[in-house]
Amino acid sequence: MSKIVYLELSDLKKKIEKIETDLLLVVADKKVYELYELDKIFHSMKNKKILYCPIIGEEKSKSLRTYEKVLSYFLEQGVHRKAHLLSLGGGSVSDLAGFVAATMLRGISWSVIPTTLLSMVDAGIGGKTGINSDHGKNLIGAFHLPEYVFICPKFLKALPLEEHLSGKGEVLKYAYLSEKVFQAVLQGHSLEKIIYFCAEYKQKLVDKDFKEKNIRKLLNFGHSFGHAYEKMYLIPHGEAVVWGILTILLLENFTLDHFRFLTKALGLTEIKKPWKKINAAEVFNFVLKDKKLVSSKEIDLLVPHKMGKVKIEKRSLEGMKERFKEVKSELEKFTF
Amino acid sequence: MSKIVYLELSDLKKKIEKIETDLLLVVADKKVYELYELDKIFHSMKNKKILYCPIIGEEKSKSLRTYEKVLSYFLEQGVHRKAHLLSLGGGSVSDLAGFVAATMLRGISWSVIPTTLLSMVDAGIGGKTGINSDHGKNLIGAFHLPEYVFICPKFLKALPLEEHLSGKGEVLKYAYLSEKVFQAVLQGHSLEKIIYFCAEYKQKLVDKDFKEKNIRKLLNFGHSFGHAYEKMYLIPHGEAVVWGILTILLLENFTLDHFRFLTKALGLTEIKKPWKKINAAEVFNFVLKDKKLVSSKEIDLLVPHKMGKVKIEKRSLEGMKERFKEVKSELEKFTF
Repeated sequence: MSKIVYLELSDLKKKIEKIETDLLLVVADKKVYELYELDKIFHSMKNKKILYCPIIGEEKSKSLRTYEKVLSYFLEQGVHRKAHLLSLGGGSVSDLAGFVAATMLRGISWSVIPTTLLSMVDAGIGGKTGINSDHGKNLIGAFHLPEYVFICPKFLKALPLEEHLSGKGEVLKYAYLSEKVFQAVLQGHSLEKIIYFCAEYKQKLVDKDFKEKNIRKLLNFGHSFGHAYEKMYLIPHGEAVVWGILTILLLENFTLDHFRFLTKALGLTEIKKPWKKINAAEVFNFVLKDKKLVSSKEIDLLVPHKMGKVKIEKRSLEGMKERFKEVKSELEKFTF
Repeated sequence: MSKIVYLELSDLKKKIEKIETDLLLVVADKKVYELYELDKIFHSMKNKKILYCPIIGEEKSKSLRTYEKVLSYFLEQGVHRKAHLLSLGGGSVSDLAGFVAATMLRGISWSVIPTTLLSMVDAGIGGKTGINSDHGKNLIGAFHLPEYVFICPKFLKALPLEEHLSGKGEVLKYAYLSEKVFQAVLQGHSLEKIIYFCAEYKQKLVDKDFKEKNIRKLLNFGHSFGHAYEKMYLIPHGEAVVWGILTILLLENFTLDHFRFLTKALGLTEIKKPWKKINAAEVFNFVLKDKKLVSSKEIDLLVPHKMGKVKIEKRSLEGMKERFKEVKSELEKFTF
C-alpha cells in the first residue's frame, strides 16, 4: 500500500531526504519544476545523487519515444536496483515516469508528487502506469505501486482553469462512487477535504484489488465512453469523463437530477459540449478498442444504481449500439 | 507458479486448446514455426481466434523497435484483457514476447513453448522478461510469470550444434547449483532427464523468490563475467557462462577437477576459447554495468563452495580487479 502524505511544500525536502536510496531519479514537468524553483529543493539533497530528467507535462509525452528518451538518459548516466524514481507533475508525467520505474532493471521503487487536481485525486494514486499507442490510451503499461504519494495542495494555486475543471470531472465520478465524497460536495466542503476523501476512497479500492480484477473496475465509471470522447474530440480527460457519465445515465435511463446538481456544485457547468452531431459508429470504434472489453461481444459497464452504489454489469455490445442510436439525439441537444 | 508440462509435439494442439481464452496471440520464431509446420496446429484451433506474429529468433530482436512492432501489430488487430499470449522459440523470443505480455493492456496472461535447450532449462522458466538497451542486456523488462511452460524435447532435433552447446553451458551452471543435476550428469542420464531436473530446480527457486531479492540470485552463477564476455566477444550466452564459471573458480582459487569432468561429460570441450589476450579494463567496464552491482563499490559474487552449494558473497570491486590481473594469464593459457 502506498503511503499518502499530505504536506506543505516547505516540508517536501525533508520527506524526500528520508527515502532510502543513494540515487534519486527525478522525472518532472519542466514548467512546474521551474515555476516553483524546485532546484532549490533538489540541489542540496543530503546523501543522495540526483539525476534530473525534465519532460513536458502533456498527454503527448506518454509515447514510446519519450519513454525511450527517459530510460536512455538514466541508463546512460548509470543506475542500480536500489535507485528510487520520483515523478513530479500531473497524470501524464506519473503515467510515463511510473512505467519507466516499472520496467527499468525490471522494476525499481518510485514515488509520486502529483501537481494537478486530476492527479491528486486519481492518476497519482494506485500504481497504474502506462503510455499511449496509436490505437488508444494507456494500451501499454504496468501496475507498479508507488511507495509514497506526496500531496501538496500548494501546487493547485498555479493550475489553469481548464485543468481545474478536468480534475473536477474525476471528482464528479467519485461523488457517484462514494457516499462520503457525495456528501462532502453536497455540504460544500473545502476542495482540500474533497481531495482527501477521493484519494482515501481510491486507495481503499486499490488496496483490495490492485490488479483490477473486480472492484477496482468501479474507478472506470464513465471512462468507456469518456476515453472515446477524449480521443475523438481532443478534450481534457476529466471533461470527457463528465460526458461519459452523462452517456451512461442516458443509456441506462437514469434520472439526471444528481448529475445536474453535482456539475453545478463543482462548477462543471462551464465546460463546453464538444459535439454538434455525434458519429455513433466512430464512438463505437473507439469503445471497441478500450481495455474494458471482456470479450469480443461483451463489455463491463458501470451502472450507478444510486449515489455510492455503482455496479459492474455485463452488456452486449450489439444491444448498446442500438440503444446508443436512441440517446444520441439527447446527447446532442443536452444543455446544463 | 507456472505449470511445467512435458509433452509430445503431437499433444501440443490439445493442450493449447485448453487454455482459457478466445484470443491467442502467437509470437513465434518464424524459422521453427515453418520447419515444424506449426500452422497445422494453429490453423484449426477450436474456439480460438489466432493472431500470429512471426519474429526472427535472435538477440537483435530484443530491441525497443521489435517490441513496438509486435505490440502495434496486436493492438491494431484488436486485443482484450483475456487474450493469452503464446511464445514459441528460444530465450530471445520469450524474453521479448513475455515483455509484450507484461505490458500490453498492463499485462495479459501468457505461456511459453521453449524450442532451444537453453530456453528449456533456463530462459523459458521463471517469468523474467526483457529487452536490451544500448547500455546493456535486459536493462528494460519486467517480472511476469507464464501460466504454462510446454516442454517438447522434439524441438531439439533440429537445433544447431552451437545452440546445443550454449544450452549445455547453462546445464553446467545447474550442475554446480543442484546436487541432483550434478549426479544426473555424473551418472550419464538422458538429456531429457537432465532438462527435467534443471527446470524443476529453477522452478523451485523462482517460487521461493520471484523478484530475485535473495536465493534466486543463485541462478546468476557465472553470469557477471559471462555477460561481459558475451558482449565483448559476441559469443553465445551459454558458452559465455562456461567462461564466466571458469573465471570465478580461478578468482576464488577453487579446484578445476569438477569443471574439467563436467565440461567433458556435457561435450562442452568443443567450445572455442574466445580470446588470445584479455583486456582486463574492458572486462570490468562491462561487469560494472551489470545489474548485479549492489552499490558502486561492491558486487554480489556467487561462489561455489562445493557441488550443490553456491553461496552469495559480497566482494569489493577493487579487490576483484586486482585478483583478476593475476588470473588473466591462467584464462589466456587455459585448454580443455
